[in-house]
This record gives sequence, structure tokens and C-alpha cells, in this order.
Amino acid sequence: MKIYVTNVREDEVQFINAWQEAHGEHEVAYTTDMLTLETIQKLDGFDAVNILQLNQISTDVFGALANKGIHIMNLRNVGIDNLDLAAAKEFGFQVSNVPSYSPNAIAEHAVMLMMRALRRTPESDARIAAHDFRWAPTIARELRMQTVGVIGTGRIGRVVIDILQGFGAKVIVYDLHRSNADLEAQGLYVDTLDELYAQADIITLHMPETAANHHIINAATLAKMRPRTILVNVSRGGLVDVDAVLTALADGKLAFYALDTYEGEFGIFNADWRDKKLPDARLEQLLARPDVLVTPHIAFYTETAVSEMVNQSLDAGVAFYNGELPSQNVEL
Amino acid sequence: MKIYVTNVREDEVQFINAWQEAHGEHEVAYTTDMLTLETIQKLDGFDAVNILQLNQISTDVFGALANKGIHIMNLRNVGIDNLDLAAAKEFGFQVSNVPSYSPNAIAEHAVMLMMRALRRTPESDARIAAHDFRWAPTIARELRMQTVGVIGTGRIGRVVIDILQGFGAKVIVYDLHRSNADLEAQGLYVDTLDELYAQADIITLHMPETAANHHIINAATLAKMRPRTILVNVSRGGLVDVDAVLTALADGKLAFYALDTYEGEFGIFNADWRDKKLPDARLEQLLARPDVLVTPHIAFYTETAVSEMVNQSLDAGVAFYNGELPSQNVEL
Repeated sequence: MKIYVTNVREDEVQFINAWQEAHGEHEVAYTTDMLTLETIQKLDGFDAVNILQLNQISTDVFGALANKGIHIMNLRNVGIDNLDLAAAKEFGFQVSNVPSYSPNAIAEHAVMLMMRALRRTPESDARIAAHDFRWAPTIARELRMQTVGVIGTGRIGRVVIDILQGFGAKVIVYDLHRSNADLEAQGLYVDTLDELYAQADIITLHMPETAANHHIINAATLAKMRPRTILVNVSRGGLVDVDAVLTALADGKLAFYALDTYEGEFGIFNADWRDKKLPDARLEQLLARPDVLVTPHIAFYTETAVSEMVNQSLDAGVAFYNGELPSQNVEL
Repeated sequence: MKIYVTNVREDEVQFINAWQEAHGEHEVAYTTDMLTLETIQKLDGFDAVNILQLNQISTDVFGALANKGIHIMNLRNVGIDNLDLAAAKEFGFQVSNVPSYSPNAIAEHAVMLMMRALRRTPESDARIAAHDFRWAPTIARELRMQTVGVIGTGRIGRVVIDILQGFGAKVIVYDLHRSNADLEAQGLYVDTLDELYAQADIITLHMPETAANHHIINAATLAKMRPRTILVNVSRGGLVDVDAVLTALADGKLAFYALDTYEGEFGIFNADWRDKKLPDARLEQLLARPDVLVTPHIAFYTETAVSEMVNQSLDAGVAFYNGELPSQNVEL
């Protein structure tokens, strides 16, 4: 089969080439460009397009692809809100995404953020860069001595728990669906978020965003937390009311906020803003604070994860082509 | 008893005060100054001095203390090479140090340095600070996917191993004295350092420096390592030939060097060099490289460790005073 891969990043190329080498029976062409009505005109003989979520796919585009005989669309990421799903169905498409690539990538990043918060690296790094090599005042806390509250015990939360237990930290967990038998047997679940807020020195979020948990971290819940709490968010920006967090940081209630996701991140993260005024004053405030660490939605960004995204999406395309239904299939 | 504590840092004060509160029967006085012949003149009625390694204690000082009836000296750290031990013995002193305060502090720092190397945070942090929020090119590696070679399986190395296993990393270990039955049972030991160099993606050092292992990491051993190896040194600066490391980094053989100890660190680390020219061009080179992370001997510097150093040294003083021999006693 012939597969056309769009929006290819430099770090994906090695994995695409490796897949191509292992699959000489198929032909992969790739481009750094988006998929547009214009590019589609050149896609004679192709069987599938392999795209990213940042590429809006409207009715027109689905129609143009169908006209070229292309009815397979594979996304290299989890989100599919860029697709006009009704059109996909109407034009007889099979669509896949990559719902799980590497829970460890995100879990490891969350734990690194905890350690950097405990070690106060924004302050300490800045002092070292200025050639001030004094130890004080950035005395650290040890992860082993902390109680860590993990909210959400799905795939990623579960890996976070395993890592924290290796450190010897005390772990308590909360999940709406208290479905993990092993965690239950270990007695890690608390019954309410209030219990978790009252006990945890570090709180880390590992759940999807829903209408019910929008701004679940807000002024009221922050008030229930212990003094010197460290908050880590590598899940979804909308879970956290950042204004309330900034107030809690200023009041000294919260010791640190480490975030890899931010409610206003769209259009800012994974883009270069060096020569432009940031359109978000609150994000500027976060970036300037020594008790905040911002990473631009890179928790997932590991060689393992990117390789999984490339391989799973290309494999899913082949599966569709061969009349099979891969596990990455999206029900339309 | 009356104890005089010198060279007190700001971060020690809370722990001294807490100890004093818990020990109303004793009296602790403290100062940020060194112990000198001059201060000793004011120490009427004191029974013990509690000091730091950075305070040179000569025959004169021992004699002056003895004249005041003081024969107890407690160090709040492990090193005692600041003491004229012959004089200590001659003047009838009892001396203690704190040989173990928190292996976890150092182990956790080593693992954080590994994660920061895998995540390429010097490059990534600099980009974020400049408001360049693009993911590429700093794609990360996952700790879980690495083989980590731990050289030295004493107290600290052992904690490092436990933490790494929580991440799911593959761990291999080497020690001159292959004495840990549990690690042996797990089959983690390799027979030679060459085997470790050939297999490890990350190498971390956890042994004391001896005449035999000075510059154990040198051009010849670096040549035996895998491409993209990450080297972590939180043990002793003298274990590493930094010139050879700089060459290996420049050649792209070594991916990253993370250090908390440096052969030329004396007089530089834990001092403020902001307004002065650094007297060490090689350290300047290390600080400037994006594939090097320097921390100024702060791995140990946690609340737990500092509290242990304060408490154990004060407790040892009381033990001497009561005619007991604490485990921190130094054989003279």
C-alpha cells in the first residue's frame, strides 16, 4: 500500500525510516507540510493519509481524499477533535488514533517535576548560572519523606505510584472509579479528595478533563491543602484554576506549582514566541516565578512515545488496508 | 550540659531550636562565627563545642579549650581532616562525627540528575526561558528503557538501585566487595567494570575515593562505554578525569555529564563567585555546556540530612558528657 505522512517532525523521521525499512512491501512518502486540498491533488495512487491532530480535516478535505480513492486516515496522536467525524463516516473512512503510546513518559516527567520542586531547581539553577555556588537557602526536601497524593489511578497514575514506591515515599490515591484491586489491597485509596488534600505534601493529577472536574483545583480546594504543598499537573490545563494557584503561591500556602499543561496553552506551546509578545500575561507570571516550573506539554515527548505513535499509526493503516480492525480503530 | 555550636547556617537554626526545646535540661548557644582562640576566651562553663569541618582546629585551639575545661568536640559532618588528631588525643578530647545522615538525599539527587540528563533540561529550560516553547529538538529518553550501571553498592548505591527498580529500569551493579546477598540473589552484579561499561546507558558512581580509584573514569574507560552514555558523579570529584570527559562530550561519545562533586571544588563550591573571575577555566567550560549539569555539592543538602547532622552531633555530645560512647565516636 502507499501511505502519505504529513506534518512530520524531525524527530519522527528516524522512526518512519525504520518502519519503511522493515516494511519493504509498502511505500511511505512524508512531508513536513499539512494535508490540504492542494496537496491532495498530488496523491494519485495513495491508499492512506497519516496525520496529526493539529491538521483540521473538514468535509471538503474528506471529499477530496475520497475522490482520490483514499479512505484510510491514521492519526499519530490520541486527540481526534480536528476531524469532521460526520464527514468521515459519510465518505466511508476508516480512522485510527494512538490512545496509548507511553504512560511511563508522562509518569516519569511528573516525578521529575516533583523532584525539581523538592530541590527548588529554578532558584538553585539560577544561582549556579550566576556563579553563586552557596548551598543556602535552597535546602531540599526528600521525596522519601513526603506523602504523595495521586489523583487518578489509570495507566499513567499507576506508573507514578510504582515509581514513588521505589523512592520509599508514602503514597495515597483517589479515583472516582476505585477499580484497581492491587491498590485496594495495598490500602492506598482514601475515600474523599478532602482526605487526600489534608494528608498530601505533593499532589499530582492523572485524570482526563471532564465537565465535572474542570477547575477541580481551585481556591476552595487549595485552602484544604497542607502548608508547603507541591502541586503537579501533567494531565490537562483545565483541571487547575491558575489564578487561584497564583494567589496560593503568593500567600505561601502552596510551595510550588509544576505544570506541563496549561489551560491557555493552545497556540503557545510547541510554538516559538521568542520575537513576539506573549498573548497571555498570566503565563508570563508563571514563567517568571521561582516557585513555578513550566514545561510546554513535553511530558509525552520521548523517543519511546514518538516511535510508538509512528509505528502504531502506520501499522493501523496496514491493518485497515488488509481488512482487519486494529485496536486503534476509532468507532465512527 | 552547656554546648557551644559554631558556624551555624540559617537552615540549621530551626533544628538546633527544636533540639533545645526537646532538651530543656541542657543549654545550647550558637553563633555563625568560627571557633577561634578569641571566642574560646568567652566559653566559661561550657562542656562541649559543636563545629564543622571547615573550621581548622590546631593544637593551640585544643589547648585553649582544655584550659576552659572543655574536652568534648562534636562535628556535624563526616570529614575530620580539619582536626589535629594528635593534639585532640593529647588534651584528652572525645570527638564525634556524623558518618551517615541521609543516603536517600544523595541517591535521590543522583536519580534527579539522570532524569534531567535524559530530558535534556539544560537545553530545554533555556529554550522555555526564551519563550521558545517548541518540543524539538530535545526529545527525551525514558529511564525505564535504560540500563543503569551502578558502581558501588554501599548505603547510597543501594538506595539508588531501589529507586531505579521502581522506574522499571534495568540495573547492573559492580562493587570491589561483592558483599550484598540480595543484589547477588537478584543477579545484578557484573564481574568486571568493562562489562558494566559495555552494557550501561547511564553510569553512576557511589564509592569513596581511594588511591586506587583516582580518575577511574578516564579516556581509556570512557572509550569502553556505549554511544550516548550519561555519566553521573555525586560521590567524589577525584573519581573523574574531567579533561577526558570534556573530550568525550565534544566527540559525541558521552551524551551528558552530571556532577555534584568536582575535583577542583574546594574554595569554589558553597561560596559566592558572582563578582569574581572563576579561578578554574575548566569549571567555566563545564558550566557553559548544554550537555553538562553542575550542582555545587548539594546532593546531601536536605532538611532530613541537616536535621540528622544537628541532632546526631548534639546527641553525641550529651552521650560523651554522660560517660557513654555514641556510635558517632571517632577513635583517636
